[in-house]
Amino acid sequence: MNNVKQLIGNNIRHYRKIKGFSQEELAERASLHRTYIGSVERGERNISVKNIVSVARALDILPEKLLEGIE
Amino acid sequence: MNNVKQLIGNNIRHYRKIKGFSQEELAERASLHRTYIGSVERGERNISVKNIVSVARALDILPEKLLEGIE
Repeated sequence: MNNVKQLIGNNIRHYRKIKGFSQEELAERASLHRTYIGSVERGERNISVKNIVSVARALDILPEKLLEGIE
Repeated sequence: MNNVKQLIGNNIRHYRKIKGFSQEELAERASLHRTYIGSVERGERNISVKNIVSVARALDILPEKLLEGIE
């Protein structure tokens, strides 16, 4: 189950890099803190659905894309 | 953004009813409390990714299904 936090962190990093955003840029677009984005990407945070949606909107993708590969 | 909590609550209720589970049965299968499931379904809770995955596993669906329709 800890793996869940790492998997969503990996997905966020994957789509962030596709968009060419730094963690700072993503954080600003999502109205979240840069250190929070970093800790989510490292699998340290149990991110909430509202923040999943904020990050997805900042990445201009559907929120469900951030759960891809999680079973 | 409050809508996000209601949309995921609606999705959980939708799939729970398809499976024919009561809130109590879903809660037990997901190792969560019945009152917690009820409040999530009513859109009162900002559910975390770990609990989204617990609920999805209890419903035997992919977690990303619970974010369907959220943009």
